[in-house]
Order: sequence, then C-alpha cells, then structure tokens
Amino acid sequence: MSRMLFISTDCHAGLLPGQYREYLDPQFREAYDADVAVQREIAKENRKVMLVEEINAKWRQGIEQELTGAWDHAQRIKVLDGDGIAAEVIFPDGITEENAPPFGAGLSVGPLGGEYETQWAGARAHNRWIAELSQMAPARHLGVAVVPATWDVDEAVREVRWARQNGLGSIMIPVMWGPHAPYHHPKYDPLWAICQELDVVIHFHSGPGAAEEYFGPMPRQPGHQDMVGGMGIYVCEAVWAVVRPLTFLIWGGVFERYPTLKVVVTEATTTWVANYLEHLDDRYVDWHVTAKLGDYKSHLSMKPSDYFHRNIRLGTFFRRKEVERRHEVGHECMMWGSDYPHPEGTWPYTRDMMVDTFRGVPEAEIATMLGGSAAAFYNLDTDRLAPLVAQIGPDTSLFNS
Amino acid sequence: MSRMLFISTDCHAGLLPGQYREYLDPQFREAYDADVAVQREIAKENRKVMLVEEINAKWRQGIEQELTGAWDHAQRIKVLDGDGIAAEVIFPDGITEENAPPFGAGLSVGPLGGEYETQWAGARAHNRWIAELSQMAPARHLGVAVVPATWDVDEAVREVRWARQNGLGSIMIPVMWGPHAPYHHPKYDPLWAICQELDVVIHFHSGPGAAEEYFGPMPRQPGHQDMVGGMGIYVCEAVWAVVRPLTFLIWGGVFERYPTLKVVVTEATTTWVANYLEHLDDRYVDWHVTAKLGDYKSHLSMKPSDYFHRNIRLGTFFRRKEVERRHEVGHECMMWGSDYPHPEGTWPYTRDMMVDTFRGVPEAEIATMLGGSAAAFYNLDTDRLAPLVAQIGPDTSLFNS
Repeated sequence: MSRMLFISTDCHAGLLPGQYREYLDPQFREAYDADVAVQREIAKENRKVMLVEEINAKWRQGIEQELTGAWDHAQRIKVLDGDGIAAEVIFPDGITEENAPPFGAGLSVGPLGGEYETQWAGARAHNRWIAELSQMAPARHLGVAVVPATWDVDEAVREVRWARQNGLGSIMIPVMWGPHAPYHHPKYDPLWAICQELDVVIHFHSGPGAAEEYFGPMPRQPGHQDMVGGMGIYVCEAVWAVVRPLTFLIWGGVFERYPTLKVVVTEATTTWVANYLEHLDDRYVDWHVTAKLGDYKSHLSMKPSDYFHRNIRLGTFFRRKEVERRHEVGHECMMWGSDYPHPEGTWPYTRDMMVDTFRGVPEAEIATMLGGSAAAFYNLDTDRLAPLVAQIGPDTSLFNS
Repeated sequence: MSRMLFISTDCHAGLLPGQYREYLDPQFREAYDADVAVQREIAKENRKVMLVEEINAKWRQGIEQELTGAWDHAQRIKVLDGDGIAAEVIFPDGITEENAPPFGAGLSVGPLGGEYETQWAGARAHNRWIAELSQMAPARHLGVAVVPATWDVDEAVREVRWARQNGLGSIMIPVMWGPHAPYHHPKYDPLWAICQELDVVIHFHSGPGAAEEYFGPMPRQPGHQDMVGGMGIYVCEAVWAVVRPLTFLIWGGVFERYPTLKVVVTEATTTWVANYLEHLDDRYVDWHVTAKLGDYKSHLSMKPSDYFHRNIRLGTFFRRKEVERRHEVGHECMMWGSDYPHPEGTWPYTRDMMVDTFRGVPEAEIATMLGGSAAAFYNLDTDRLAPLVAQIGPDTSLFNS
C-alpha cells in the first residue's frame, strides 16, 4: 500500500437558514430575520429555473445524512474520510440553494449581489463561523474568508488581518466588480500587499454571471418577454466571468509588483487555459496588429503566461480530457477538487470518478494534481497530515488498474 | 498564369471631417458642425494614448496619396488593383482616427458610443455615402450599412430595406448593447427575419471594448489615478467583446429560427474558434456539471458548433499560425481581408504577407480562404468579376515558391 495525499481545493460549507444570527453583529440581526424570508423566496424561484427541484431531490435520495456535513463537523469528517480527502479548501454556500451567508455574501458576493453594509456584515458572520469550523481540525480545513473588497479596500485589509489571526489563510473576493473599479486599479494595492505579506491565497470562485443580460431585469416588469437561451449563455459565460479578473491582474502588473501573490480560479474548468495564455502572449509579443497603440507592455518584465504559471492555480475537479491535456496547461497549476456537497462535483462517486479521470497517468503527475500542487501553494504542513494520509489516502494502485 | 479570385472581407472607407454634412438630414447639420470639433479633440487625445502619433506618422510616410483612397474612388480602385483585390467589404472609419461617420456611428456604434437620434442620423449619412461609393463599381464594392439596432428594431428593419434597395447587402450592428437588450431578446426577431429574407449579411467588427473599465471613467475626474495595463487588457478583451454576441445568438436559438441567416465576425483573429466551440459544445452535451440546471438546450436541434459552421464566417486577415490551424476552425469559415487603409492590415505589403501566410497550403484551400468562401457567403456574381480577376488577381504560382 502506498497512499497519496489527496486535497480537495473546492468544497463548500454553510449554516442552515437563520443560524447565522448569532454570528452577526447585533445591529444586523433584525434585518437578517427579514433576509432569511427573502432568501427563501429567492431559493423557491431558483428551484424553478436554476436548481431544478426534481433533479436535486433525486440526487439527494439516500445521501440526506451525508449532506448535513455542509454544517455539521462530525458528519463532514466522515465524508472527507470516506472520500480519502486529507485537507479541503472550504468556500461558502453549503448546499447551493440554502446555507449561503447572510445578505448575498456568498459565491455571488459583490456589488451586483447586495448592499455595502449588509454584505460586509454577512461576510463577517460567515467568516466567524468558518473560522470556528476550521479550528475543529485546523490541519484539514482551510476555510475561505469572504471579502467584499470592491467597496472598501481598507476594510478588506483589516479583514485579511483578522482572517490570518483567526487561522484562515484564504480569502475570496468578488468575481464581478459591477460599477466599482476593476482589479488593475491602484486602489487595490494595499490588499495585494497584505495578502502577499501574510501569505493569504486569493480566490475567484465561478458562479456569478451577467444574470440580467441572460434572463432579463429582475424583478420581472409588466410586458416582460422571456429570453430563450439565457441558461445556455450563462453556463458558457460563467467560465469567462471568472477568468476575466486574471486579465486585469496580469496586465495591471499586479504580479510584477507583488511577485509572490497567490491567486486561484476555482471551478472554472481548465480547457480554456492554453488558448487564453496564447492570446495574452500574442498581444505581449506586440505583433503587427497592435503596433499602432504604442508601448503597453514595458511595465511587465515577463510575458503573461509566465505570471500565470508562477502566481495562479486552477482549483477544480477534472474531466478526463482536461487531464489528457495537462501539459498544455502546465499540470503543476491544476489542483483537484470534489466540490462536496454540490451535485456537480465528484461526491458521492469520488473514487470512481477519480480513477476514470486519472487512469494511466504517471504516478508523480497524479500526485501533483491530487495533492502536491495544493500542498505547496497553500503552504500546508504535510508532516502533520501524514498519519491521516496513511489511514485514509487513496492507494496509488487504484490508477494502474 | 492562373489567377485567383481575391476578396478582402475587411476594408474601410470614410469621408474627411466635415464632408458628411451634405449627407445628413438638414436638422442635424448644425449639431454636426459642433461634433466635428468634438471629434477632432477626441482624435487629438487618442493620438496620445491609442493611436500613437509618431508611429502612425512614420507608417504613413510615402503612402499619403494611396491613403486618400479612404474617400477617393479613383485612388481606391488603384490600390485595390495593386493589391489584386477583385471585391471588398467596406466598413466605416477610413483612417482610424479620422473619417468616421458623424456622432460616433462608426465601428463603436451603439449605446456606449453616442445618443439615439444623432447616432441614427450619423449612420444614415454614412449609409447614403457608402451606397453612392459602392455604386461606382457595384461588383467590387460591398458597402456595409451601419445599423444601430439596439435602440429601435423597427427603424433597423426599415434601414435594412433601404440598404438592400440602394445596393447594399451588408450591415453592421453594435458589438456591445450596453443597457439595451442582448441579441437573444425576441425583440430582434424582425431584424433577423428581414436580413434572412433579403439575404443581408450581419457583421460584428472588432474595436469596441469596456473602455471605462480599462482606462477609467471619461472625462477624467479630479483625483483620477491612472490604471496601468488598460491597453493590454483592451487588446485582449476586444476579441472577446466581438465573439460575445455569437454566444447570445447561438444559445438564443436565432439560427434555429432563421436557418439561413448570415453573420460575420470581422478582424477578431481565429485562434479562439476551436476552443470556443469546444466550450459551447461541452455545455450542450449536458455534462455532469450542468445537470442540476435542467433542460436548457431542447430548443436547439443541433449543437452550437453546427450553427457556427453553417451560419457564421470569420472576416479577417491571417497570421501564418491561423492558416496552419485552419482545420481546427473549418477553413471554409475563414475569409481573408487586407484591412486597407488601416495600419494593422496587410496593405501596403499585401503580396508579401499573403505569400508568407499561405505558402505551401493546398491551392484549393487557399482559393477558398482568399475568395471562394466570401464569394459564396456574400453571394457574389463571380462571372461578372472574372474579367477583372484575369487582369489583377494574384497568380497561384506565388504560393508554390
């Protein structure tokens, strides 16, 4: 037996509706009680169009107990052990249409998803809880603090310090900045500086999209005409939305100024990477078509793909074809994830899906993608995890069958 | 000697500042006089950051006379003959920072580039002139009518009828819809219907981008902080901006309802196509990750790439590597263009660049990409062009050397 370090860089957790109350600053509790009702209505609407009730109900049959690991620590540990996962990165939004942080401070955090004061309050409530949950097994749980950075960078810097002091080495910031400044604006420099200084990993998690463009303005106006195809557009553009901040960070010279800053794009597939980097590098090489624009690259000492491979990682689960093309992407940038407890992840079929995905790949490369890359990027204490890996880690022989 | 039909699907023409006056409806002429001064200021600003004066001045040395073909028909014919171009698709914005239609109705037409009434007036003025220019050699000049469709679809339908009646078989519509409805909205159906009925080709020409995100709000506010990297972001995102409408059209079922509708994306490279179509098709095949969203594809009888190959073409000049990867894209979808009189095109080095780009490719495929595809898609009368091709067309032997 030779067991592998197996890290999921994409898991989720969140409290049941109403249970964030005690984690909120008192002045927001009354508003939260009302918000819970609002969120229930939104969830109800969502179940009609976004998270189809019958599909989800069917998926949940027989795993109801295991799903409670979204908020229950003992249950969560059982699921992780069963999957062979030694450590996990934990995002908000436990079971998609429930368990989200208050006031829209979950995966859709940002100016398009809520208001300034309440979103910060909701984010802080979630951060307090996820810090508490993570402390129950700090070597295994890497909780991600929600930081609505677009509104107030000073607040964001304070929250990063709070997160690090409370055992959290990861944050997520809004994927979409709405009317606020994009991420190449110098106002964000203090945020990049503190994240670099404290070795805090920044995440963009897929989910947000330009919903009003796809589905029409909400709430529905009289005379609203349904726009056929909105969901197809959404599932395609959601990937682009989460890649877009990288373009701003790379060209903005953020990784030039903060050379050890760490950024992860989570659950956005990897099939776009090779083409995306080719496009950025083409523009950097200053070909014919852009010559008339003058110098727009001398602030970058390396080409865009060099920053990508140094500063950026892809946190996601894999399809077989993504693994087959790992060398186009740079397999060191690819980090596996189960997405537990979301239905689009590998759980409850993790072992089978993992074997299907990685079969026949050289063992060293599997080890990198399943755990090595993540351990290095998140700076994990692998010695401390070793006894656990020896108990629950998947055996290398699985992939040779 | 065996001469080839050589069509440029990307050329530009426009009048000198002030000269659109007589083509404007009288009530807009006074506003136009003021607008000319405004445009001169914008051009002056642009020459500092976007179209660097010294680079452009150097490029123009020795070709000043030929550049006047941007508005002078006799000169234009000489340039086309010299390049071996039998027919050309003509977009607005003759020499980039001058010769644009009034009131921002050029390549950046749309709600982000101007106001409703004046933009329509500017578009109509340009359309009247480009129709007149095209009539000077109607088999060679395929003028593109500007149609600011996002504001008023009834007006757009009338303009398409006007265009067809006045010899124009092509339109361009805004790349970015701003606060208006995207192109999967049913309000556009009458526009698609009339374009299909009258065999009018719809174009999206690259150029627009989310400028305020890249460079900050205009005009500059007190305390403005420069955002380093805006130009690099722009040159990368400009390609994405012009591809985006395709996602809305395809998923919106527009090509399902209008199966012979024709759409061209111009000057957007082709290196993104294979990856883009893979992404759309992956989502269509309904893999694991999107199952929870329910049915979002039964309104499409074919997969996205099938619509693309049937209804969409790429109008652009080529880099060598694009030609090398032509089979990933479908070389029948690729149409050559010189971009005359823009500096980023092939002119005044068309012959050399063409040979470098296509050398060694099978003759039949070169013929398709240099002219055959365009002739079919734009439904050209190749018999009428044959005597001209026999005189000026490039010889096939060029590509075998």
